[in-house]
Amino acid sequence: MAQDNSRPSLATDAVLKQSEPVPEDFVEVTGVDYSKDSAYNMRATDLINSMKTMGFQASSVGTACDIINEMSQWRGEHIDTIPEHEKTGEFDSLGHQKATIFLGFTSNLISSGIRDTLRYLVQHKKVSAIVASAGGIEEDLIKVLAPTYLGEFSLPGKSLRDKGLNRIGNLLVPNDNYCKFEDWIVPILNKILEEQQAAAEKLGAEALNADSDAVWTPSRFIDRLGQEINDELSVLYWAHKNKIPVFCPAITDGSIGDMLFFHTYKASPQRLRLDIVSDIRKINAMSIAAFKAGMIILGGGLIKHHICNACLMRNGADWAVYINTGQEFDGSDAGARPDEAISWGKIKADAKCVKVYADVTVVWPLIVAATFAATRPE
Amino acid sequence: MAQDNSRPSLATDAVLKQSEPVPEDFVEVTGVDYSKDSAYNMRATDLINSMKTMGFQASSVGTACDIINEMSQWRGEHIDTIPEHEKTGEFDSLGHQKATIFLGFTSNLISSGIRDTLRYLVQHKKVSAIVASAGGIEEDLIKVLAPTYLGEFSLPGKSLRDKGLNRIGNLLVPNDNYCKFEDWIVPILNKILEEQQAAAEKLGAEALNADSDAVWTPSRFIDRLGQEINDELSVLYWAHKNKIPVFCPAITDGSIGDMLFFHTYKASPQRLRLDIVSDIRKINAMSIAAFKAGMIILGGGLIKHHICNACLMRNGADWAVYINTGQEFDGSDAGARPDEAISWGKIKADAKCVKVYADVTVVWPLIVAATFAATRPE
Amino acid sequence: MAQDNSRPSLATDAVLKQSEPVPEDFVEVTGVDYSKDSAYNMRATDLINSMKTMGFQASSVGTACDIINEMSQWRGEHIDTIPEHEKTGEFDSLGHQKATIFLGFTSNLISSGIRDTLRYLVQHKKVSAIVASAGGIEEDLIKVLAPTYLGEFSLPGKSLRDKGLNRIGNLLVPNDNYCKFEDWIVPILNKILEEQQAAAEKLGAEALNADSDAVWTPSRFIDRLGQEINDELSVLYWAHKNKIPVFCPAITDGSIGDMLFFHTYKASPQRLRLDIVSDIRKINAMSIAAFKAGMIILGGGLIKHHICNACLMRNGADWAVYINTGQEFDGSDAGARPDEAISWGKIKADAKCVKVYADVTVVWPLIVAATFAATRPE
Amino acid sequence: MAQDNSRPSLATDAVLKQSEPVPEDFVEVTGVDYSKDSAYNMRATDLINSMKTMGFQASSVGTACDIINEMSQWRGEHIDTIPEHEKTGEFDSLGHQKATIFLGFTSNLISSGIRDTLRYLVQHKKVSAIVASAGGIEEDLIKVLAPTYLGEFSLPGKSLRDKGLNRIGNLLVPNDNYCKFEDWIVPILNKILEEQQAAAEKLGAEALNADSDAVWTPSRFIDRLGQEINDELSVLYWAHKNKIPVFCPAITDGSIGDMLFFHTYKASPQRLRLDIVSDIRKINAMSIAAFKAGMIILGGGLIKHHICNACLMRNGADWAVYINTGQEFDGSDAGARPDEAISWGKIKADAKCVKVYADVTVVWPLIVAATFAATRPE
Repeated sequence: MAQDNSRPSLATDAVLKQSEPVPEDFVEVTGVDYSKDSAYNMRATDLINSMKTMGFQASSVGTACDIINEMSQWRGEHIDTIPEHEKTGEFDSLGHQKATIFLGFTSNLISSGIRDTLRYLVQHKKVSAIVASAGGIEEDLIKVLAPTYLGEFSLPGKSLRDKGLNRIGNLLVPNDNYCKFEDWIVPILNKILEEQQAAAEKLGAEALNADSDAVWTPSRFIDRLGQEINDELSVLYWAHKNKIPVFCPAITDGSIGDMLFFHTYKASPQRLRLDIVSDIRKINAMSIAAFKAGMIILGGGLIKHHICNACLMRNGADWAVYINTGQEFDGSDAGARPDEAISWGKIKADAKCVKVYADVTVVWPLIVAATFAATRPE
Repeated sequence: MAQDNSRPSLATDAVLKQSEPVPEDFVEVTGVDYSKDSAYNMRATDLINSMKTMGFQASSVGTACDIINEMSQWRGEHIDTIPEHEKTGEFDSLGHQKATIFLGFTSNLISSGIRDTLRYLVQHKKVSAIVASAGGIEEDLIKVLAPTYLGEFSLPGKSLRDKGLNRIGNLLVPNDNYCKFEDWIVPILNKILEEQQAAAEKLGAEALNADSDAVWTPSRFIDRLGQEINDELSVLYWAHKNKIPVFCPAITDGSIGDMLFFHTYKASPQRLRLDIVSDIRKINAMSIAAFKAGMIILGGGLIKHHICNACLMRNGADWAVYINTGQEFDGSDAGARPDEAISWGKIKADAKCVKVYADVTVVWPLIVAATFAATRPE
Repeated sequence: MAQDNSRPSLATDAVLKQSEPVPEDFVEVTGVDYSKDSAYNMRATDLINSMKTMGFQASSVGTACDIINEMSQWRGEHIDTIPEHEKTGEFDSLGHQKATIFLGFTSNLISSGIRDTLRYLVQHKKVSAIVASAGGIEEDLIKVLAPTYLGEFSLPGKSLRDKGLNRIGNLLVPNDNYCKFEDWIVPILNKILEEQQAAAEKLGAEALNADSDAVWTPSRFIDRLGQEINDELSVLYWAHKNKIPVFCPAITDGSIGDMLFFHTYKASPQRLRLDIVSDIRKINAMSIAAFKAGMIILGGGLIKHHICNACLMRNGADWAVYINTGQEFDGSDAGARPDEAISWGKIKADAKCVKVYADVTVVWPLIVAATFAATRPE
Repeated sequence: MAQDNSRPSLATDAVLKQSEPVPEDFVEVTGVDYSKDSAYNMRATDLINSMKTMGFQASSVGTACDIINEMSQWRGEHIDTIPEHEKTGEFDSLGHQKATIFLGFTSNLISSGIRDTLRYLVQHKKVSAIVASAGGIEEDLIKVLAPTYLGEFSLPGKSLRDKGLNRIGNLLVPNDNYCKFEDWIVPILNKILEEQQAAAEKLGAEALNADSDAVWTPSRFIDRLGQEINDELSVLYWAHKNKIPVFCPAITDGSIGDMLFFHTYKASPQRLRLDIVSDIRKINAMSIAAFKAGMIILGGGLIKHHICNACLMRNGADWAVYINTGQEFDGSDAGARPDEAISWGKIKADAKCVKVYADVTVVWPLIVAATFAATRPE
């Protein structure tokens, strides 16, 4: 090579290329300052403050906290200052407009200890509506009847089945829990069927109309279940109590579906019905009515898309926090970044939004401790 | 250290530990044999044969092909030799029992070019039932009306929204496609509402009963859409034609939901209804009726759980192939291995099952080319 | 179907299969108890205690803390009670045997704010040896010279290159930092070459022998860099100060390599040499000498394998904590679970070990706050 | 709500937003055309052609093939037309400039059946230089001595260790293989040490100089191992034969390291040395000398960064294909997209580059069959 005895200029130019001056608003990467007393056995807010400038997902967790605080604390006009027909969304206790917050979570989170944190949010009216997968409904109810246990990801399926232990990741649910659930839910299904039939008889040709009591929706069905379970540890109990609708369009996809399936034999020729059209009307109308809308979506799949799609009805959410482990490379909605939702009008182009790439269980308790539960509710 | 001038015995023992003789049935890892002519511009079956002994996911792809071939080719008793009340499942054209195959796929696969492969399977009756997410229904229909395009994962959402281009991973769907879809579907919705209302009026108090035409299910609704689209490139067209039911409990979770939502305003006070209870009855009954059941699940979320749950009704599928990118560490059902389903009784303990960890688009065309499409259908 | 008017028995048996009684030592899944004051703006130890019983990766994080506490707090015999030739490992200040802890981390963690946490561990002698990738060495030094900044994952590469801003995930490093680094390191390289040459001349034919000063290893080279940087924010400064060896067999794979490359032209015909054989001797000897060995491995690739391989020399580590985002399905060592290392004798079969599936930045600050930094060091 | 009896305009505008006309160069998403005979038991090139327009990773696989074909087929000036001092890179047999192709792979790929494909590339001089991790060197040699076997990801580590079976993902390597490896390599290490010592004695004070034979590098060491193994199934054999350098800066990180470690005891006070500075000189000089440079990087970690870093020396590679399962969210180099390398000058801003998100084993045999092995070499 020509440059054999001197530094090769091609390489030198590439390696030692000079950079433009860094803009003044650039933020330096820093971490925990261990000179401070608060760095020891850290509190959630201190930890989050340090994480914000760490980079990678630590920064995303910090951003998620900022966004959650902002959507929770946003206040608009006072109710007295706005025209009647615009009084569509939510107001705080002092009469100021507040944001409508959609919370989505997958079934596994209710199976895990995250359930208590979700229940806390619903109990204290931190969210406005919930979208859950079917297991996210039934496991909440079943946990009132019997516990779920810690296990291992590697426990072999055959021996678990022999023992009647159902595995969910590193959790175990004894199959007896589902037997107890059947005992609990069948009388309720009977009662609901009765009510539907009575309404149908009364309404006649109008039984299928918009305001009919003859055909229930999943959200109405879930509300009843929350009322019936009547236990303060239940997410659905508080959702019922606080009138927070819980949407689950595919409520049949799990143990409740099994029970409804069995019930079709028992009830024949009558049949309990659950209509999903009226629920899409309901969630979309909430989105349109909202003054501002925030999305907090824990996990992927249906629950993620369903909230995003509802927010398309208002031309985009104003804030969005995704937490999941999905990746975008396979084109799945589960793995799509918030920026994909912006292309669809599901999140506003100028919305504050973030995706945290993490198992929800490792970040959500911390995030809640630094935001919704930074101080004890009165 | 004591061993300073000799080889340290602790390390030697650990590093050079002797192994037991390898069992005779152990299979050696090998790859493509490039001494053969078939190693060049390889055919699918040759490639798969080589991959089987490569290890990692190549072996899983090979196993998936074996399982698919086995579930497709399984034949049981002749129809004439079994009692009438046991003639519940499927028979081949010669009258032999065959397996019921449940195919599940997520929306993104219909958006991608995989749609043609899925359509091929349905057209040639390679599968018995389909479970799809909402987008998996509507995108099949929309593609008949207007094309989807290639894009980039990194295209910025804001400028895409400005142009009305919706991004799905590295695909782009012009928003006009959804406008065309509205034009197409609204008259159909009107017609279905009419039919439901007519049936309701006729049935009166029995409008909600099991065999009523007044309340449709998503699968019946989808069958109608397949009939109406009437295009040989459509998966749903062939599903309708070949009487392959398509289940989609959350059919409202997408563009069809948007249209149904708009329709509730237009139709008021009447309302089109879609009941999901009768569909859970239908899919579960298929599972119970099957002589043998195979699952082919492409992607995660609802569609994966729904097929597994249906197979619980028969105490487990006999074969299972999962292909997805989900991971088990977050306890999601999407990421759960087949062995987790065994613990629930959703897959039989002795079933042949495999999970291929891959974006479906990189393996499914190859797998189909080496199995369902190894030879041209007559 | 035969069962048309009664509940299908096949499904009933499968769904309502009874389970064996749950063993008494099963642990119930629970979450944060929001009735307690400690649930608000939670402290690290309270958060970790709650996470232990949440399941999924929250439980793994809890287990990681338990393991770290155990390896840190393990104490064996007093130095006075053991024979001279067995006094090979580490002792605490009171003379009791303690565990040798190997800490591994990848380059990106030094680029991130995690550097401060790693420095804290080294400063307070919480670990015994370090294995890092090349960037993990140089970025620690460069950060003393100039800062790294927060950026975005989606910033386009071309415009960044035009500005001379190098991207590391969502971090940005101005290229000038590397120019400053060159100014700093070249005189040191000159000095080291001089010292090697002087030793070589003195030793003659024995220049390559085991105890020669003529050929340095990466760990010796790094120790000198730590001495020269002389800054209390530097990990390497404290490693030098506290005589904690830092292993980096591929030290040439990064900016230091660039500088060494340029130096070969400048120094010709002389050449600075870095021998990796003596370093493998050094790390393996540490492993053999240790009374007990713990592994804390943050990230994957070389640094993970290198610590595991060293622990094979002692027939397995006694404790192991992996934190990374790798998956096992591709057969990579990066994604391998601890159980794979057990098959190799790199972790003892009865060792306590865990893998946390997470970006290190979201869990490590919390883990440290609940373990090594639960209380302020005296 | 005001819009209660008409379609809500906010939603309508958002859902039915019109799109700009699609540019003419947009490519429609399509899949396999099953009307063609070539759609059955497909050939690699037909499959790849179909995959290009499928979207998601199928498109990325198609792009990878295009890039590989382009880098392989690129030809520049004839050797007779360029000045002497510019004749630095590679020429084809007819005397035209060709690209220098760097191939990187991780250890697990050599353990898998991919080894045969890698060997094919080296045997037929399809690549110019290799960067491998330590296991990528030793497993190639060990496979000549004894086979690796198929296993399962879920085999428990303890019972494997008891049997002396080492697990690599779903592969098993009997520990005896490593004993055989020791028998094979120790005489070679003895011989190399002898040669180093003889050179050192001869050179005296110049033993460490640039052109010295007294200190070998990993690449020289590996070349000798390739020569000694002398088996046509070995990658290293062909690398030696075809003078394709194999770089492995951390060659000590594995079984060879174990053997070198043991050898330090045996050889004491002499010591075999492996210097990594001269190898960084060698690989970087190749990059600078290349007329054009292509990168094919299978897997992540060191091998990925090392090739990228070498290409920084020429201000960026001209083509780049990454295939791995890493994700960018944790800021790891393993997961970094090509666009991150562009910010560093490691890939040219206008280079054709792609990352395929997949386990190498599911795509690489197909990619090679459609590119390097589309036709049989003469």
